[in-house]
Amino acid sequence: MINVALFGLGRIGQMHGENLHAHKKFNLKYTFDIDKNLSKKISRKFNTISIDNPKIAFKDKNIDVVFIASSTPTHINLINEATKYKKVVFCEKPLDLDIKKVNICKKNIKKFNPKIQLGFNRRYDPGHNSLKKDLQKGTIGKLEKIIITSRDPAPPPINYLKVSGGIFKDMMIHDFDLIRFYLQNDEVDSIYSIGSNVSDKRFNKIKDYELASCILKSKNGVQCIITNSRHCSFGYDQRVELFGSNGMLISGNKNENETQTFTKNSTSQKKPLLNFFIDRYVDAYKLQLDELASYTIKRKQPISSFEDGRRALIIANAASASLKEKKQIKIQF
Amino acid sequence: MINVALFGLGRIGQMHGENLHAHKKFNLKYTFDIDKNLSKKISRKFNTISIDNPKIAFKDKNIDVVFIASSTPTHINLINEATKYKKVVFCEKPLDLDIKKVNICKKNIKKFNPKIQLGFNRRYDPGHNSLKKDLQKGTIGKLEKIIITSRDPAPPPINYLKVSGGIFKDMMIHDFDLIRFYLQNDEVDSIYSIGSNVSDKRFNKIKDYELASCILKSKNGVQCIITNSRHCSFGYDQRVELFGSNGMLISGNKNENETQTFTKNSTSQKKPLLNFFIDRYVDAYKLQLDELASYTIKRKQPISSFEDGRRALIIANAASASLKEKKQIKIQF
Amino acid sequence: MINVALFGLGRIGQMHGENLHAHKKFNLKYTFDIDKNLSKKISRKFNTISIDNPKIAFKDKNIDVVFIASSTPTHINLINEATKYKKVVFCEKPLDLDIKKVNICKKNIKKFNPKIQLGFNRRYDPGHNSLKKDLQKGTIGKLEKIIITSRDPAPPPINYLKVSGGIFKDMMIHDFDLIRFYLQNDEVDSIYSIGSNVSDKRFNKIKDYELASCILKSKNGVQCIITNSRHCSFGYDQRVELFGSNGMLISGNKNENETQTFTKNSTSQKKPLLNFFIDRYVDAYKLQLDELASYTIKRKQPISSFEDGRRALIIANAASASLKEKKQIKIQF
Amino acid sequence: MINVALFGLGRIGQMHGENLHAHKKFNLKYTFDIDKNLSKKISRKFNTISIDNPKIAFKDKNIDVVFIASSTPTHINLINEATKYKKVVFCEKPLDLDIKKVNICKKNIKKFNPKIQLGFNRRYDPGHNSLKKDLQKGTIGKLEKIIITSRDPAPPPINYLKVSGGIFKDMMIHDFDLIRFYLQNDEVDSIYSIGSNVSDKRFNKIKDYELASCILKSKNGVQCIITNSRHCSFGYDQRVELFGSNGMLISGNKNENETQTFTKNSTSQKKPLLNFFIDRYVDAYKLQLDELASYTIKRKQPISSFEDGRRALIIANAASASLKEKKQIKIQF
Repeated sequence: MINVALFGLGRIGQMHGENLHAHKKFNLKYTFDIDKNLSKKISRKFNTISIDNPKIAFKDKNIDVVFIASSTPTHINLINEATKYKKVVFCEKPLDLDIKKVNICKKNIKKFNPKIQLGFNRRYDPGHNSLKKDLQKGTIGKLEKIIITSRDPAPPPINYLKVSGGIFKDMMIHDFDLIRFYLQNDEVDSIYSIGSNVSDKRFNKIKDYELASCILKSKNGVQCIITNSRHCSFGYDQRVELFGSNGMLISGNKNENETQTFTKNSTSQKKPLLNFFIDRYVDAYKLQLDELASYTIKRKQPISSFEDGRRALIIANAASASLKEKKQIKIQF
Repeated sequence: MINVALFGLGRIGQMHGENLHAHKKFNLKYTFDIDKNLSKKISRKFNTISIDNPKIAFKDKNIDVVFIASSTPTHINLINEATKYKKVVFCEKPLDLDIKKVNICKKNIKKFNPKIQLGFNRRYDPGHNSLKKDLQKGTIGKLEKIIITSRDPAPPPINYLKVSGGIFKDMMIHDFDLIRFYLQNDEVDSIYSIGSNVSDKRFNKIKDYELASCILKSKNGVQCIITNSRHCSFGYDQRVELFGSNGMLISGNKNENETQTFTKNSTSQKKPLLNFFIDRYVDAYKLQLDELASYTIKRKQPISSFEDGRRALIIANAASASLKEKKQIKIQF
Repeated sequence: MINVALFGLGRIGQMHGENLHAHKKFNLKYTFDIDKNLSKKISRKFNTISIDNPKIAFKDKNIDVVFIASSTPTHINLINEATKYKKVVFCEKPLDLDIKKVNICKKNIKKFNPKIQLGFNRRYDPGHNSLKKDLQKGTIGKLEKIIITSRDPAPPPINYLKVSGGIFKDMMIHDFDLIRFYLQNDEVDSIYSIGSNVSDKRFNKIKDYELASCILKSKNGVQCIITNSRHCSFGYDQRVELFGSNGMLISGNKNENETQTFTKNSTSQKKPLLNFFIDRYVDAYKLQLDELASYTIKRKQPISSFEDGRRALIIANAASASLKEKKQIKIQF
Repeated sequence: MINVALFGLGRIGQMHGENLHAHKKFNLKYTFDIDKNLSKKISRKFNTISIDNPKIAFKDKNIDVVFIASSTPTHINLINEATKYKKVVFCEKPLDLDIKKVNICKKNIKKFNPKIQLGFNRRYDPGHNSLKKDLQKGTIGKLEKIIITSRDPAPPPINYLKVSGGIFKDMMIHDFDLIRFYLQNDEVDSIYSIGSNVSDKRFNKIKDYELASCILKSKNGVQCIITNSRHCSFGYDQRVELFGSNGMLISGNKNENETQTFTKNSTSQKKPLLNFFIDRYVDAYKLQLDELASYTIKRKQPISSFEDGRRALIIANAASASLKEKKQIKIQF
């Protein structure tokens, strides 16, 4: 059994807790949250030791994995500590909102030969992931275009939005990473982005955007398009299209169920899309844990790394710069 | 150019007239209808000679094809005459409602080595027809099941229904023929049928059915299911499913256009199905004419023959018998 | 917590064990199997008391639910005992292969005011179940046709097939039940059935069928079609179509994932269907347990009862009779 | 009958010729092509007067419509002449490759109160057009995003490409126009574009692109994405997606027929897309003529005008500028 200490017991932390608890290879030993009441409640639920001080987990030689699901500003410190103590680290995205802090961390932890898996869950989604496999098999020949549609059912609360880092760092960062996932031996070279607010004018006040679109170009000339929206009336719209010299691959949406309705005015009417990211990516979150287990036991490199987190953040910063300067920004990693 | 005499200028006759007129290989020379005014009107439209007496066409040595689109009771006589004069004959379905008359005709015309193409338009539909080709290529291995759904948008007028011969001879005859089309070297062996009226009780009065279903079994054990309805709120529902040892083939419906609507309550909502048989089978009617041209010029056997018409009628009679006797009826051709 | 004793630890028993173990409202206390080694192994896995004698569970006043997942011939005896001890009973389908035993049981247990939920899992499938809700809402007007396609990916082992009771009692019984589920205040009135073996001739030897089809008619004239196959190359084909005076509802298949491939020769190519009934009906099995919990705690009547199991078996017997006698069989419940 | 003079008898001219010939409201009187043999051949086919000098048509007072399907450099002169003679003009896209010539023409012809319909066929496509209607009905609320995918099955010959004006003026001009069609009372404000050659390196030599993508932003903040490819292995890929505050509308592709294949490795496999623009937009070309007839007879304004042609060209020029300067270009009409 792999012993785990879980940091952060909010919505996503609890979900990871459930999955770790149910997973045959993990033993959830410690749980920690700055909210002590929450910490105790969750510890009872999963039968863990609730700790007040992260050090307890770091110093426990039986702890194999430090699982970071706490708020973004705490990530880098926890990574620093955990790598020092030679733990395998799982860290939720994003690493941090400040690329400088991430770069310093990168330098600092190098000497510990760090083992860090990043929480880019979409790489693990059975649909999105199978596109990569088909691409590698050569099903569509040479990759020429990547088109990603990502629309949340509804915006998070305004208080969250204010500290989120903006649509590029908070939301589109998933899509930047997904593009790099498909590019493989190629890399993002430039970006252009726009943002606008058409329906929900609250975003103007916090200098953020409900709608954003980007065009990225890879070193090999692959054209990548991302279109994001903070709202989507028909559910959680998550699609990927890969176009190549010999074909096209599409990873589509998941509906509430597989029924269709035919009436006088319309046919083949399907149910709305799954509305919640935890439902939509339920399998991805589980497969992510399987990989964490392989990483811990067999040292099999995970498909999502610290460096992937760093690069996605660099692209997000370039997206913001492009929006301000109204021009193409060259990416430097 | 192939010279044609067209008999019958009702709705379907006019449609054939349009297609013959537009076809590069046909010259529509004579048109005939018992309604003389209609006959004159249509003759002006297509620039044909309107004739009062069918004999004129039969005796004209330049006439290659006699095209029969008149009412059902006139078919057999016109076939008798046309074959005597060595014309190539195209005849709309059904041959007749009385199998005895058809059998006598079969005997009578044998000596003329008749050339007759029957108007089973669905055999020519690009979708339904491509299933046959895929079946022959072995795409789905051994054929095991044929499932046909056929639903008209709305019932014809009650006066038509009264003389239609009933749902099996008037409507399901198309499906009986389509089953034989896919069975190829196999043949229908038995049938069981039911009929009922759930919503439109007018059918009770004329001793006919708005809903009918059949199970047929072939000599090789292929199970065939037909489901018919005289009404269909969402359009003209025309589907074929072939199930085999290695796969399945489906020929689906045609929608008004290829758009989809996504809203709060439903997704992927398509437009209604094409509502009218002439729209739905527009390509089939044209391909039917192409085959008539090949038949006339190159003596290439058409895929739909007099014997196909005769056998479909025999099955329709067996369907009626099964319904009455509440048991399986063995088919004898 | 609801205390449960689980009988039968084969494939389906273990699956129920997993679900009961994971369910928040159930405490899996006892497990029993005639294979003692298996019993011990599973008891360790789920941390239960492995019992040698079912009586232990029946006599334990803390046991609320007797969960029967053992082999078919043991069902009736366990029901007799469990109802005597006032337990809530969950019983897998079919109740038994012999309708006489079922009828006697019905009489015997009546005095105990039995609480029995039957394992017709498909009634709980989110897709199939939502069709019923839409039907009740009047989405398609009056129900006129029910068409069920049910094809297993591959036949069970021949040894299982020999004692299975045949395709009607073992496989199509699910579909007979589903038809009754949709008919609601209506009831099945007559049936006609055929069976045949086209590809897998082993079925001839055991006097069973790889392919079967039925037409049933309800008292109100609803036409019901079932088509079964013991094999299906492209996965587990499970579809329901409800046709009504104002529309149509379809519950479709589940694919391995939501991807599509477009290449030179084909477009919109999807992945194969889910191949295993436990994967396909994973949600149904969980929802079934939710209902069992409500039944136990709140006495809320489940949607699948002993009487449903008895009636499905009567229809299956009628299907066999029809096949032998080659005629429509009137159903008497 | 509306008397028409048709200029240009190449591939597209002949197609228009066929449609004009078959249309009930048009009489194709004159045909002209610089290739005199072609001109004679086509004049025999459609039974028209083949003319050597366009003046003959202009001076004929019975000619109502001048139909311009000749090569791009001839368009402006023919428009100048035709408007002077008060003819209704239909002109194929693009108006010209040089915006200066178009602007001068605009000034010159103003005094004649010109009646010009432009050949942006996609506005007339039943699918694309029905999206506009649904948008106007408010089906998706406020328009927020327009996403257009347009991929040709294969590039035109290199000799054509060399004089085509490049991918923006020759191909994407359709999509620029379509965006303006959906924007209605809004207008394109800025554009950013990229181009690249991944598979077909011939495009490098002629300084053109096989792949291009654009992001446009409207004055109201609507984000518009266009993705073009000069090749597409699976057919003619033509899709439009409109995303709004309350929903999404999609206009999808047309397949060769409506069949699906299911085998061991894949399911719901459809036939390739229609491969040829004349097949794909067959209905659009006919509806375009219907509108030309209404324009001529009833002076009903067509949905595609000279000004639409001019503005699409201005956007195409801005796209080229953006690509060179690697920045957002503000559009000035």
